[in-house]
Amino acid sequence: MIYLSRKEYFCASHRLFNEKYDDQKNMEVFGKCSNPAGHGHNYELIVTIVGEPDPETGMIMDLKKLSDIIKREIIDKVDHKNLNVDVDFLKGIIPTTENLAIVFWKILEPKITQGKLYSIKISETEKNMTEFKG
Amino acid sequence: MIYLSRKEYFCASHRLFNEKYDDQKNMEVFGKCSNPAGHGHNYELIVTIVGEPDPETGMIMDLKKLSDIIKREIIDKVDHKNLNVDVDFLKGIIPTTENLAIVFWKILEPKITQGKLYSIKISETEKNMTEFKG
Amino acid sequence: MIYLSRKEYFCASHRLFNEKYDDQKNMEVFGKCSNPAGHGHNYELIVTIVGEPDPETGMIMDLKKLSDIIKREIIDKVDHKNLNVDVDFLKGIIPTTENLAIVFWKILEPKITQGKLYSIKISETEKNMTEFKG
Amino acid sequence: MIYLSRKEYFCASHRLFNEKYDDQKNMEVFGKCSNPAGHGHNYELIVTIVGEPDPETGMIMDLKKLSDIIKREIIDKVDHKNLNVDVDFLKGIIPTTENLAIVFWKILEPKITQGKLYSIKISETEKNMTEFKG
Amino acid sequence: MIYLSRKEYFCASHRLFNEKYDDQKNMEVFGKCSNPAGHGHNYELIVTIVGEPDPETGMIMDLKKLSDIIKREIIDKVDHKNLNVDVDFLKGIIPTTENLAIVFWKILEPKITQGKLYSIKISETEKNMTEFKG
Amino acid sequence: MIYLSRKEYFCASHRLFNEKYDDQKNMEVFGKCSNPAGHGHNYELIVTIVGEPDPETGMIMDLKKLSDIIKREIIDKVDHKNLNVDVDFLKGIIPTTENLAIVFWKILEPKITQGKLYSIKISETEKNMTEFKG
Repeated sequence: MIYLSRKEYFCASHRLFNEKYDDQKNMEVFGKCSNPAGHGHNYELIVTIVGEPDPETGMIMDLKKLSDIIKREIIDKVDHKNLNVDVDFLKGIIPTTENLAIVFWKILEPKITQGKLYSIKISETEKNMTEFKG
Repeated sequence: MIYLSRKEYFCASHRLFNEKYDDQKNMEVFGKCSNPAGHGHNYELIVTIVGEPDPETGMIMDLKKLSDIIKREIIDKVDHKNLNVDVDFLKGIIPTTENLAIVFWKILEPKITQGKLYSIKISETEKNMTEFKG
Repeated sequence: MIYLSRKEYFCASHRLFNEKYDDQKNMEVFGKCSNPAGHGHNYELIVTIVGEPDPETGMIMDLKKLSDIIKREIIDKVDHKNLNVDVDFLKGIIPTTENLAIVFWKILEPKITQGKLYSIKISETEKNMTEFKG
Repeated sequence: MIYLSRKEYFCASHRLFNEKYDDQKNMEVFGKCSNPAGHGHNYELIVTIVGEPDPETGMIMDLKKLSDIIKREIIDKVDHKNLNVDVDFLKGIIPTTENLAIVFWKILEPKITQGKLYSIKISETEKNMTEFKG
Repeated sequence: MIYLSRKEYFCASHRLFNEKYDDQKNMEVFGKCSNPAGHGHNYELIVTIVGEPDPETGMIMDLKKLSDIIKREIIDKVDHKNLNVDVDFLKGIIPTTENLAIVFWKILEPKITQGKLYSIKISETEKNMTEFKG
Repeated sequence: MIYLSRKEYFCASHRLFNEKYDDQKNMEVFGKCSNPAGHGHNYELIVTIVGEPDPETGMIMDLKKLSDIIKREIIDKVDHKNLNVDVDFLKGIIPTTENLAIVFWKILEPKITQGKLYSIKISETEKNMTEFKG
């Protein structure tokens, strides 16, 4: 079994808050990430699939096709957007990287038809990374 | 003459728009950077001073002090903030990296008392960089 | 299960040697890493925890709190230090990245109370990396 | 068990094509990677071994020795070469990163005598990565 | 005056050789870069323009437009290509980074109509960089 | 005129202190960089020369030769060393990056016979950089 990964980028703003909490409670729980007018990041998204290379091509999957799927299903929806407001599939979800990884998995898993989805990694800064393996 | 640089980071959201334009005109001029609900970046800020090392210390300026000045004057005001809304010294300014560099220069220039301020570099993504030399 | 990682940095000096060996034997075994007056590195430390996000917050653990624990328990003790001389919890230990990872695990494992410690990664140069999973 | 990794680099050219296909079919399957006169990359190769540190040295394996093996067995054969033409152990193999990882594993696995080979990672651009675990 | 830079990437193969030299002389002069079947790199290209921001937009030039020019004039012609064979504007030119920088300058200089072209930087590996300022 | 740069690395330990000061004064001036038992860094050294490419080769200077000079004159003397103790040409010099850049310039300037030495850049961490232009 071989693991094949593709990295893509998106720039977005977000605010971490739970609408059941008041502003003070949100600040206690989420700190500066709960600034009411939001803040933002350059996100890195790494999608890893697992499978066996096709002997005819030496590839599990054409990385161009994998890139196209990630861009069409995820990047085009979240890049240069406000994750709290602009993205249908994030409505009602606190946009932590943990939650983003779970949502992105649900969207991408059925689209991967050569090999299988293995992992979603998201980093929101160079120091903060999340991985979800389904 | 020796050039000494310190890099710091901040995460912020912004929207590029001119309030004299309507939304359509803003979209024509600023593209996806004018998304009404904003987007965001991990910014890198590199401040360079120029001078001669003090023979007693071998340093133009203690980098810890340079870092403290940058953090106190800039980073603490813009990190985890919305650049259009939350920052006093950016009121009325379109927050392009060009404009940020000019504003940050004006703030930092009088604070550098060992050596002189030489350059402000800001990158908003790994592919986009601006430098201002006063 | 979701994996959440935080990266921190420290700068330290060390010398690889076994006090039971003489200088010649140490040079044979450890090469230039056994220079008697030491050498140093910018270390990267990545701490990964595993768990399920709290539905109230979307987080396994507040990354600010994880960062604070790593800084208080590890970074403050080893940053800008000589690993052979200055660090209580490294006394008598050859400071290879393998041994550092094991020691850091023992220190951090009981401090992680939301989720569980999953992995300690240390790189001593961009080309050399170690991972310990307990 | 501890995982110890060493990264090395090589620069090479390649063309992705199946000699059973005509040029048009190769272009359909491999896209611009099938440019007849080839193209090239700066490859990163990360070799990971797993084992227990020797209590005498604190090391699974001397990283200098691991680096020497990787350079002698792999890098010296592929660096500044055309992977389709110049490399004996790649004759008849479509030089995708998936296939490179499998071939490199077969070559390196018997050479690792302290600890065991655990993983071969190859990235051909910053966005494309492959891992093989044997 | 403000300096605005855009980074783009391309992957290409090349061989350094002077057709007036025989293979032995080429090897003496260009070393392993003269491997007859070629080798390749992931190139980074940084294009810097200089100018004053338009007060209406806060921009010297829309970075999207700068990126489009670089892609149309340079990247589309050299990416996934053999620089010795496939590129019209490199015919008869030894494809060192020095020569690439000069050629790219000549192509891009007349296309920059907001601000002026200031510098072309090319790196062929992380360790080798060239800059041309016209 | 074209600028050609080569990056090399070294790992070293150092302590910042002025032997005319007592320990308390050194701590006041140099902070944690004055830890008596030292600390260390992975240094990056970028050497830039300026000149015109030879029409026969397309190169100002063979980068392999530039790399060999830097390694022989600098890296072999400072890598895996203690900069306060082990290096002849640093005796009596406070090893700040400012002072290192000046010393390295004096050593390298007469060795560059194709083109001329233009700049020495040293970074001691990813956040701290120095440049000297002679």
